[in-house]
Amino acid sequence: MTDVKQIAEMAKYAAEDALKLSADIKNDALNAIAEIFENNKEIIYSANKIDLESAKNMNLSQSMLNRLKLDEYKLRDMILGIRDITRLDDPVNKVLWSKNIAEGITLKKISCPIGVIGVIFEARPDVISQIASLAIKSSNAVILKGGTEAENTNTAIFNLIKKALLKIKGFPSNMVSLIHSREDVKEMLNLEEYIDLIIPRGSNSLVKYIKSNTKIPVLGHSDGVCHIYADESADLEKACNIIIDAKCQYPSACNSVETVLVNDKIKREFIPLLFGKLKSNGVTINSDRIIAEDYTGFVNSIVEDWHKEYGDKIISVKIVHDIDEAIAHINKYGSGHTDCIITENNDAAEKFMTYVDSAGVYKNISTRFADGFRYGFGAEVGISTNKTHARGPVGLEGLTIYKYKLLGNGDIVEDFVLGKRKFNN
Amino acid sequence: MTDVKQIAEMAKYAAEDALKLSADIKNDALNAIAEIFENNKEIIYSANKIDLESAKNMNLSQSMLNRLKLDEYKLRDMILGIRDITRLDDPVNKVLWSKNIAEGITLKKISCPIGVIGVIFEARPDVISQIASLAIKSSNAVILKGGTEAENTNTAIFNLIKKALLKIKGFPSNMVSLIHSREDVKEMLNLEEYIDLIIPRGSNSLVKYIKSNTKIPVLGHSDGVCHIYADESADLEKACNIIIDAKCQYPSACNSVETVLVNDKIKREFIPLLFGKLKSNGVTINSDRIIAEDYTGFVNSIVEDWHKEYGDKIISVKIVHDIDEAIAHINKYGSGHTDCIITENNDAAEKFMTYVDSAGVYKNISTRFADGFRYGFGAEVGISTNKTHARGPVGLEGLTIYKYKLLGNGDIVEDFVLGKRKFNN
Repeated sequence: MTDVKQIAEMAKYAAEDALKLSADIKNDALNAIAEIFENNKEIIYSANKIDLESAKNMNLSQSMLNRLKLDEYKLRDMILGIRDITRLDDPVNKVLWSKNIAEGITLKKISCPIGVIGVIFEARPDVISQIASLAIKSSNAVILKGGTEAENTNTAIFNLIKKALLKIKGFPSNMVSLIHSREDVKEMLNLEEYIDLIIPRGSNSLVKYIKSNTKIPVLGHSDGVCHIYADESADLEKACNIIIDAKCQYPSACNSVETVLVNDKIKREFIPLLFGKLKSNGVTINSDRIIAEDYTGFVNSIVEDWHKEYGDKIISVKIVHDIDEAIAHINKYGSGHTDCIITENNDAAEKFMTYVDSAGVYKNISTRFADGFRYGFGAEVGISTNKTHARGPVGLEGLTIYKYKLLGNGDIVEDFVLGKRKFNN
Repeated sequence: MTDVKQIAEMAKYAAEDALKLSADIKNDALNAIAEIFENNKEIIYSANKIDLESAKNMNLSQSMLNRLKLDEYKLRDMILGIRDITRLDDPVNKVLWSKNIAEGITLKKISCPIGVIGVIFEARPDVISQIASLAIKSSNAVILKGGTEAENTNTAIFNLIKKALLKIKGFPSNMVSLIHSREDVKEMLNLEEYIDLIIPRGSNSLVKYIKSNTKIPVLGHSDGVCHIYADESADLEKACNIIIDAKCQYPSACNSVETVLVNDKIKREFIPLLFGKLKSNGVTINSDRIIAEDYTGFVNSIVEDWHKEYGDKIISVKIVHDIDEAIAHINKYGSGHTDCIITENNDAAEKFMTYVDSAGVYKNISTRFADGFRYGFGAEVGISTNKTHARGPVGLEGLTIYKYKLLGNGDIVEDFVLGKRKFNN
């Protein structure tokens, strides 16, 4: 049995050691990991083969099997991903700002790691290398739990990472740990004394389970119910292109669109156009009662649950009377992930983007752009729908917090209270 | 009985309305509150008198009674505090950064309110006006629960705030609500669907209770176990002055010092000097066994619990062999609030400030400086020892999060995947 508490304790010590790590030693560690993967591909492949073999007896979907399989392209991308992270700026020990709060007293706000992060992910074994690399780059210790289906692959990858880290002199190798079972996860979720943040990456049900079973802050999103609202002044062609991209380009992604809201004033012209494109792209259409009655040949069924994430080539379509109804619908049924207005009217766009309370509010652009790499963060920790700490696509910065350094020369508060000295502001 | 769920729901609607509020209308609201207080002092005083009268039958300490009493000076400060907040920059709708992620696609990171904040505070009725003003300034809705002892004063102040807000045309007056009982608080802590952040301001036990009874993020600190470490290269006079200030200037503050760590190499010279000053300032000294044996006349008792917040003129003193032991002691027994090194050696200072994992790490300056006003934030929401969202003294910025606005012109991800277009980074 894994002693999760001990692992967490060791991780906490490692996190303290990590406070001193220079950008160079962290990049050395990352390069060592990339190199050990390059030189030991067979170890990873054979572990992966065992998992794929066992998976035959599990009841896995084809998409889960695809995600489980580590082929040479995925391994290449995994290694490239690590090298990319070495090229990013060190997110910690940055002076965020500095000022003299009084004569001779300097206050500095410095970015620093959060501490110990627990990451729970499903199926995809390439995540382990990505998350471990991001943790190392940001000087955080990380405790990883992968999907049971990928247990052999994860362990092989983890062992190689560990071996690489042990070779780097002065590097706290306990910064990366692996735990194995659901019981381990359950135990980890109770260790708020040691663990500062939990990041779940996987299905809605995984994230919901985690959120309701821990007091540790959780970074992530359970649902991705994204909307596109076609305003009365929408360019209809743009609207169709964007909706098709947002639905079909990768339907199982959390940033794909689930619901299209159509302004009543454009419905007659727009709906036939849109439905034609949706049909020819193989998208199943569900709708409200009005549309269903007018377009019997197109509509599959009447939507009963407007907070529905299909994750597939299925879409909900609804008529709204005006932009206010669209905003109200999104704030009520959405998940605060990413929502878009299609309009040529700047005032309408500004109104939509102000009132829709989501991590991403878009104008005339596919919701599929909600992604850390596309935003230019160089890496993505995940997408957050939280209202504190980090929201939207989260890059390395989301794995940092700050501390205040105050530099004085014998200064006491009493002098300020007595009026002998004054603050600058 | 208060319908807390309904209040929370109304607060959520108000928070959505608040997304549009201009800096001007928010300042109008704040000025209206200041004015209504100025014109209705007698209403506040007489409510306060009722509370002070009832308090005679409760078993309140003198310091609690002092905090409960609202005299003309406190009321003046309360009103000045509101006027001060009008002069701060609007913390929301700020463009934090903006960039073109590809030709014709602009990404903007915009500060925005968190949403609905629950604030639970004890005794001091002036807090209600301060917190309501900060919430209004940052466009957040707030649900307040004050101490039972101040129920009449709180209600009087709240009613005046409400009356002032109702006069401002277009202002969502449900942005400020008041709940009344412990049962109300219990219910509020379960309303994660409506409430985005809880801020407790009060005793350790209050904060601990809140933290262990909600899934909503909590901003604050339960303990303030601050340390001062006198390094081997400390200037002894500075050390004494700083320790006396940090202990005696306001002993019940969370940023006052509880434990002094003394480097073994300076103990012979420093301890008699320090103990003399502590004694003459009326401070009771507890210590480790070694010091207790050498200074029987000075030491009151041997420290058994090094994680002890006295909140009084009592101090723990311990010998450490070197800076590493000091750092390890602080990271083990401290509360991550504010810790200081006294040294003339810059390397030692840098080491201490890097490895001590606290919100504030200080060099040669009293821990009493850990305060939002002293840091120049213009207002203080509270002090956080969290490792996510906000850490240390929290100003208005801590009541904000951000959203991403993405402005396109019909852009689809497919074009980038097919290599027809490229991202800028």
